[in-house]
Amino acid sequence: MEHMIYLDNAATTYPKPESVYQALDNANRNLAVNAGRGSYRVARETTKIIDITKEKLKNLVHVSSESCIIFTPSVTIALNEILNGLSIEPEANVYVSPYEHNAVARTLHFIAKTKKVNIIELPVMTDTLEIDIEKIKYMFTRNIPACVCCTHISNVTGYVLPIETIFVLAKQYDAVTVLDAAQSIGLIDINGKNLQADFIAFAGHKSLYGPFGIGGFIDMGKVFLNEYIVGGTGSDSLNLDMPLKSPNKYESSSPNIVAIAGLNAALNECNPEEVYLMEKELTDYLVSKLSEIKDIVMYLPPKDKHIGVVSFNLKGYKAEDLGMILDEDYNIAVRMGYHCAPYVHKYLKNEEYVGCVRVSIGKFNTSKEIDKLYDALLEIGGVV
Amino acid sequence: MEHMIYLDNAATTYPKPESVYQALDNANRNLAVNAGRGSYRVARETTKIIDITKEKLKNLVHVSSESCIIFTPSVTIALNEILNGLSIEPEANVYVSPYEHNAVARTLHFIAKTKKVNIIELPVMTDTLEIDIEKIKYMFTRNIPACVCCTHISNVTGYVLPIETIFVLAKQYDAVTVLDAAQSIGLIDINGKNLQADFIAFAGHKSLYGPFGIGGFIDMGKVFLNEYIVGGTGSDSLNLDMPLKSPNKYESSSPNIVAIAGLNAALNECNPEEVYLMEKELTDYLVSKLSEIKDIVMYLPPKDKHIGVVSFNLKGYKAEDLGMILDEDYNIAVRMGYHCAPYVHKYLKNEEYVGCVRVSIGKFNTSKEIDKLYDALLEIGGVV
Repeated sequence: MEHMIYLDNAATTYPKPESVYQALDNANRNLAVNAGRGSYRVARETTKIIDITKEKLKNLVHVSSESCIIFTPSVTIALNEILNGLSIEPEANVYVSPYEHNAVARTLHFIAKTKKVNIIELPVMTDTLEIDIEKIKYMFTRNIPACVCCTHISNVTGYVLPIETIFVLAKQYDAVTVLDAAQSIGLIDINGKNLQADFIAFAGHKSLYGPFGIGGFIDMGKVFLNEYIVGGTGSDSLNLDMPLKSPNKYESSSPNIVAIAGLNAALNECNPEEVYLMEKELTDYLVSKLSEIKDIVMYLPPKDKHIGVVSFNLKGYKAEDLGMILDEDYNIAVRMGYHCAPYVHKYLKNEEYVGCVRVSIGKFNTSKEIDKLYDALLEIGGVV
Repeated sequence: MEHMIYLDNAATTYPKPESVYQALDNANRNLAVNAGRGSYRVARETTKIIDITKEKLKNLVHVSSESCIIFTPSVTIALNEILNGLSIEPEANVYVSPYEHNAVARTLHFIAKTKKVNIIELPVMTDTLEIDIEKIKYMFTRNIPACVCCTHISNVTGYVLPIETIFVLAKQYDAVTVLDAAQSIGLIDINGKNLQADFIAFAGHKSLYGPFGIGGFIDMGKVFLNEYIVGGTGSDSLNLDMPLKSPNKYESSSPNIVAIAGLNAALNECNPEEVYLMEKELTDYLVSKLSEIKDIVMYLPPKDKHIGVVSFNLKGYKAEDLGMILDEDYNIAVRMGYHCAPYVHKYLKNEEYVGCVRVSIGKFNTSKEIDKLYDALLEIGGVV
């Protein structure tokens, strides 16, 4: 994998800090017992690591100690547990942003099929593709929201959604609010205490720079959630019902202590303010370079409202073909297509390209790598 | 962790082969991109590793190429997907063995609450605690089975259930058959082709000696399964429905390529026939040593019908207390309590001990370690 220029960090960040690799190897060799179940000393040590990691996450997103971190194997599992766990009445209105990932979009579609709820997209302004707050106010009066789900950063355009405002509006109707922070946690300073989100779902392997195998959600303790995925919890084994309370109620199966130990190490190096500034600068640089190329079509939110992800096409190339050339001839790893985001493409109008090429940067990328992408695009046929 | 005698292998095997640790570290450092989604070369390489690992699993359990391996983050997730995905009619009879783990028992209880199905325990003979085949025949005529779920090996007594016979009986009524092979895969040679199981759920981190973070199930392709956990699949992104077919339909979220690479390495060293003989010998030795101690109460199936796990109590000690002493004074790691198995304890009659102490052996245990356990039990108060 030498010399690969990795620009697929919105899928998963790569590489991770060296300390994360070391923590993972150490955990595999020395800690990989059944955490939270066994009562021998190593098992107890693993329980401590889980608690410490949760504490660090709480501090990171500034939530109080009464809120609860639930670990799941992935953010997809977390969103399945949250959305399927909500007590939504038939005919209720569930609002989603048009920037949702299929972890939310397909899950709500699945629920809509059985519970007959209405899934309504939040409106955007057609020129800038920003969320249209004024229109939301009007829509909420017409169709009262029971639940509002919103991603924090679009994994297609890098757009940072105005979640604070959206959730304040939602709470005027006592709607349940769900934040998908898969792309933002670790990159944007999330203030969970002020933010009116009832649930915040997160991934460990993206901007937190942890490993695969660990995600979860923060339960602010204000909304009751039914269990959805059940199993052994190492507690109250004779009871066929799940434990009544967070987090045990939603944490069946052996915890992935190795992934948690990796996340624990990753959190030691996590500094959203610093990473934000660095990634913002690199994103702006990427945009400025791509802007020089005449035949590039970019799908850009307003300048100060996006970070980390830039999607584009080069006229004359299908997204898939351009990505393949970047890979095969230049060893540049980008992603092509629709990026598991079903709603947004109708606004981007990228049908002729069959999606778009997505460049997503991480904290280990450099401006030199952006220059190489630029040079490659010129060689492929971009004209300055 | 030096000098720890690890006897909690039914929870998770420890340690793993050195090659597994190396494969995990290599995958973290060199392969941890978004497998099956990106189209750049490393992403394609990871896709190959997934395919190879699935092929090895198919060979291990002797299923044809038309059957399908679905990877999930754990066997619990697999069982949730299988059991919740079945189209079970209200009032239908779902049979389970009394040896089930809560990954099955709680999931069926959860389903029973919403779908109003009848959960019926398979009968056992009260003297040997073996499954009572003759009685099953009678019960099936009275209450026709729609589904039969059965674990292969009890995680409490090590009893190997007569799954072949049970599933043949179930299939006389066209019942759906589900095998929980969490404890058996890698330890017992499973012949999936002859066994009349529609779904076989497995864990990667137990007798396969792979890491946490990977489990799954084998879909023999004969029974339709609805989706239950949904999300992005990296394919057909604009479609809000999940892909129609196995495995994509049940594999939402980024694959845990690191855990899969670890499992792939583990499968190279997997030899059920050899491990079975070794563990059987050690299990018999363990039983013979414990039998020497007068105040030990063992919960034993007939001699040739159990492997790997031996549960017992020492008169005068609660299970919890005995386990704590073994840990604190002898650094021997066992597990105490009910072991996430809700049904079986009523037959074991271990109320006065509040469960039992479970010793579960793995392929790296030795007879010397059993001797140390024996010596410890004598010191604690066992009388020969």
